[in-house]
Amino acid sequence: MKVVITGGAGFIGRRIAMRLLARGALAGADGRDAPIEELVLFDNAPPQLALPEDKRLKLVSGDIAEPGLMRRVIAPGTGSVFHLAAIVSAQAEEDTDIGLRVNLDGTRAVLEACRALGTVPRLVFASSLAVYGGDLPPSVSEAVPLTPQTSYGSQKAIGELLVNDYSRKGYIDGRSLRLPTIIVRPGRPNRAASTFASSIIREPLSGVDVVCPVSRDTVMPALSPRRVAEAFEKAHDLPASAFGYNRALQLPGISPTVAEMVEALRRVAGDEVVRRIQWRPDPVIQKIVDGWPRGIDGRRAERLGIRADNSMDEIIEAFIADDLPAQKALVAAGKAG
Amino acid sequence: MKVVITGGAGFIGRRIAMRLLARGALAGADGRDAPIEELVLFDNAPPQLALPEDKRLKLVSGDIAEPGLMRRVIAPGTGSVFHLAAIVSAQAEEDTDIGLRVNLDGTRAVLEACRALGTVPRLVFASSLAVYGGDLPPSVSEAVPLTPQTSYGSQKAIGELLVNDYSRKGYIDGRSLRLPTIIVRPGRPNRAASTFASSIIREPLSGVDVVCPVSRDTVMPALSPRRVAEAFEKAHDLPASAFGYNRALQLPGISPTVAEMVEALRRVAGDEVVRRIQWRPDPVIQKIVDGWPRGIDGRRAERLGIRADNSMDEIIEAFIADDLPAQKALVAAGKAG
Repeated sequence: MKVVITGGAGFIGRRIAMRLLARGALAGADGRDAPIEELVLFDNAPPQLALPEDKRLKLVSGDIAEPGLMRRVIAPGTGSVFHLAAIVSAQAEEDTDIGLRVNLDGTRAVLEACRALGTVPRLVFASSLAVYGGDLPPSVSEAVPLTPQTSYGSQKAIGELLVNDYSRKGYIDGRSLRLPTIIVRPGRPNRAASTFASSIIREPLSGVDVVCPVSRDTVMPALSPRRVAEAFEKAHDLPASAFGYNRALQLPGISPTVAEMVEALRRVAGDEVVRRIQWRPDPVIQKIVDGWPRGIDGRRAERLGIRADNSMDEIIEAFIADDLPAQKALVAAGKAG
Repeated sequence: MKVVITGGAGFIGRRIAMRLLARGALAGADGRDAPIEELVLFDNAPPQLALPEDKRLKLVSGDIAEPGLMRRVIAPGTGSVFHLAAIVSAQAEEDTDIGLRVNLDGTRAVLEACRALGTVPRLVFASSLAVYGGDLPPSVSEAVPLTPQTSYGSQKAIGELLVNDYSRKGYIDGRSLRLPTIIVRPGRPNRAASTFASSIIREPLSGVDVVCPVSRDTVMPALSPRRVAEAFEKAHDLPASAFGYNRALQLPGISPTVAEMVEALRRVAGDEVVRRIQWRPDPVIQKIVDGWPRGIDGRRAERLGIRADNSMDEIIEAFIADDLPAQKALVAAGKAG
């Protein structure tokens, strides 16, 4: 079968792609493994990170909301779609129109293209902890009403509602995963308000100075790239019956403070590395991040076999093993840091 | 100031219009009463029910999602918009595309037209109890997560998210009211799954036989046209600070069973009238209605001064006083029943 990853040039999309290429299969409509013959990575720009030479890989770039484009990308034979393409939080907050265009119109284009297939493809939608907002309990789960306090969070909550309705109507077999902040992201900082959470680990390890814009007691529910790619694959393969009437699933995660993240970095890499972090509060970023949940109740996902990381140290060690060499090469080439 | 009611030809829109014309004013941007100079009733078709001769009234019909139309209807000088236009539940369930077009694209067109004014108009959005679904507690409130089990409910939940986000960003001063079933509706049955709840009172009182498609123990949270029009007016006039970070408000209501509704009709109008009800179960309607909440916790709205009816008897008596003469005239003219 054919698989499409929107946002496939991003670091999560790429990591899912690498897992799928290695495994070579995904659950088909009957629940049994079906071989992946083609893996389309769709994004608004070509990938910056290296991809393996693999004849199953196909790269397509364009505007997700362009009329007709998603129908051509999600072509007949597509059995599964991973929909990750999005305008991130800080940018969607600043530019309402582009957020609506990509996060709402783009998601509708993806869903309509899936519906047009007539074959009920599986779809895994990347939602976010940003769907929560307002007065929150100490930890968030599917039992918490969604009153997002960012445009990005609103648009993700709308996407979840559409995924639920398209699934209920039998147009797709969808599932939405509420992602915590994914750390440590490789590459360059992006325009997500949470980007600092990766930067304060990644840049010092790469020999680059970094500014932390939030206070040390800021809590950041987090999941590693390894675990999130695993979660996408597992959520894809679960039968629809595992979800019941609600296709939205809160992913699990650990919730270190920024101070605890820095202490883990110190344990793993030493004082010299930690000294590369400078502290310069940015009230805009602090306000957005303070509106997010502080803890996660990911028990529903855990019961379905989806796991969090064991510790911040483990997250940092995974980054060092998986991504640090390439990151250092980017820095050396003047393309990051 | 200028006021626009979308869905203004419908029975709730019309009743709000009559209240506003009688009062002649609404709270302006500063919270003080501002005189209504023009009241635009927008709908997809001209009104069927009689409207008073009033030079402030202006009727416009068209397609709410037509590009540019809402910007012309919600023209400069518009201080307040009541957005009621919608494709109702059974029709949106049957025809996904028209539901998305009117309930989602239409709502976006209304919100964008308000935003384009640049004057932060007040907007009251008619949401619905259909936003709830799945495993529900005995009574629903703003504390319940929204997992609607109809396309109509999904589209209303999406509208609420957009109203919240546009308000938070300062484009509008919005509020969304979750309406229970409004009974007794005058006129003809519509394509809402709940239409029977009005029909089983209205038709017998007008001397017309009626079929009840649901069982006697079906519970129907309900509010009268009088109370819902009052709720729209009150919610409009409340300051933004009354809502906090969540502009969605669960309206209160009473929750009679169908059997209790029929017994109230018997008390008010006698056995002869009740004998006009025939019972013929429709599993499609029963299934939709069974997915809706059975009880309402409307305490947040009540604290803000919004009231439910006191009894089913009072609801029936209000219909007899307000609408039965016109209804009987419709029946006599062969236009209803």
